[in-house]
Amino acid sequence: MVARAMANFSLADLRLVNPRDGWPSEKARAAASRADHVIDSVRLFDTVEAAVADLNFVLATTARPRDSFKPVRGPEAASLDLRRRIADGERTGILFGRERWGLNNHEVGLADEIVTFPVDPDFASLNIAQAVLLMSYAFQVAGREGDLSPRFAAKAPAPAPKQDLFRLFEHLEASLDRAGYFFPEAKREVLAQNLRTMLTKAGLSEPEVRTLRGVVKAFDHEAGRLASGDESEAGETGA
Amino acid sequence: MVARAMANFSLADLRLVNPRDGWPSEKARAAASRADHVIDSVRLFDTVEAAVADLNFVLATTARPRDSFKPVRGPEAASLDLRRRIADGERTGILFGRERWGLNNHEVGLADEIVTFPVDPDFASLNIAQAVLLMSYAFQVAGREGDLSPRFAAKAPAPAPKQDLFRLFEHLEASLDRAGYFFPEAKREVLAQNLRTMLTKAGLSEPEVRTLRGVVKAFDHEAGRLASGDESEAGETGA
Repeated sequence: MVARAMANFSLADLRLVNPRDGWPSEKARAAASRADHVIDSVRLFDTVEAAVADLNFVLATTARPRDSFKPVRGPEAASLDLRRRIADGERTGILFGRERWGLNNHEVGLADEIVTFPVDPDFASLNIAQAVLLMSYAFQVAGREGDLSPRFAAKAPAPAPKQDLFRLFEHLEASLDRAGYFFPEAKREVLAQNLRTMLTKAGLSEPEVRTLRGVVKAFDHEAGRLASGDESEAGETGA
Repeated sequence: MVARAMANFSLADLRLVNPRDGWPSEKARAAASRADHVIDSVRLFDTVEAAVADLNFVLATTARPRDSFKPVRGPEAASLDLRRRIADGERTGILFGRERWGLNNHEVGLADEIVTFPVDPDFASLNIAQAVLLMSYAFQVAGREGDLSPRFAAKAPAPAPKQDLFRLFEHLEASLDRAGYFFPEAKREVLAQNLRTMLTKAGLSEPEVRTLRGVVKAFDHEAGRLASGDESEAGETGA
């Protein structure tokens, strides 16, 4: 039903993370009606991280605004922004959650912004195919109203591909581990999540991610020098 | 499913003409999820003429523009027009056709204007519940017209006072100096400026600045420990 909803509005790039009932699925193909081209080009991933790795900008759809500092937009505003980013050459994606309970906090945390639908707060009951249908429609409408989209003075640099950002997280967290930052151990996850949220929110470009990798590397080298008692390497770690 | 689609966007006045499976219908109530208020207030009619008799203005939804001289609009333009008419005190309605073959020419002829959805002409496959969902959504969006700026789920935290940010710059740069990051010396100013620009652009809140100070402090402590050959301090630097 998701494939069919997408096909109505000319969208075809569907990525699945650990589909519950396996893949390929004849049941899915039947429900897709004649949207075989969407089903045929589905790509499978083990993790959400892997599924968004090559993207510059990711929206997470949620039923209601979370207790989160990420920007929240409606489907129209989000679609206009996506159109602008795509026109600028960015690779973008939209995350939809599981049928029953949506995206978990970790998954929302991987996205740049949040999209919610303007549903009646007393009756919100969209299934995933309906959410995809509305988002696909809004994206299509945004393309036909391009004249209404905001103009930008200077072209903002694209956020780095997510895989670069995730590698920065790993690098920083490994170095902080060594430095004893994650203390007490019980707070580890919340401390790491705070850092990831902050770095995601910053919308870092590829050169900026590289700069921060250089910063962490400088501390790594320093620790390595001091641990080996060798001061001669000083100065080799400048970006 | 139609009742449920309507309820998501606060619509409740559903009129049925000769429902195939009779009425009331427990099957319909089950499919409506919790949209009982829509099901309970359904009105039944024998003919489309009777169903629209009290209305001032009627839209007919069709899968594709007919060979007709009626005006054809998209869902957004039609919704804006409906909103204006309702504000002027008009009674309005939207006709949806049967699941398989839509509205016949006679039925379309009863309407004032036609609405079509901007679906891919090579893949148009909306069922009636999806058509109602899209039209209900468009009507809801038309009511919020102009609301394109992002909201925040939680109140966005204010950026930290500049003095806190400047202290972070000083702290980070002193630590990076020690670590040998600013190399060669000639690139010092541009490297430092890049870091400052990035951290300013991120719009860091006071807690976020504190978190980053904690990160730098962890590396400071590690360097201190390693330089003094004392490993006992490990773990004291967690934020």
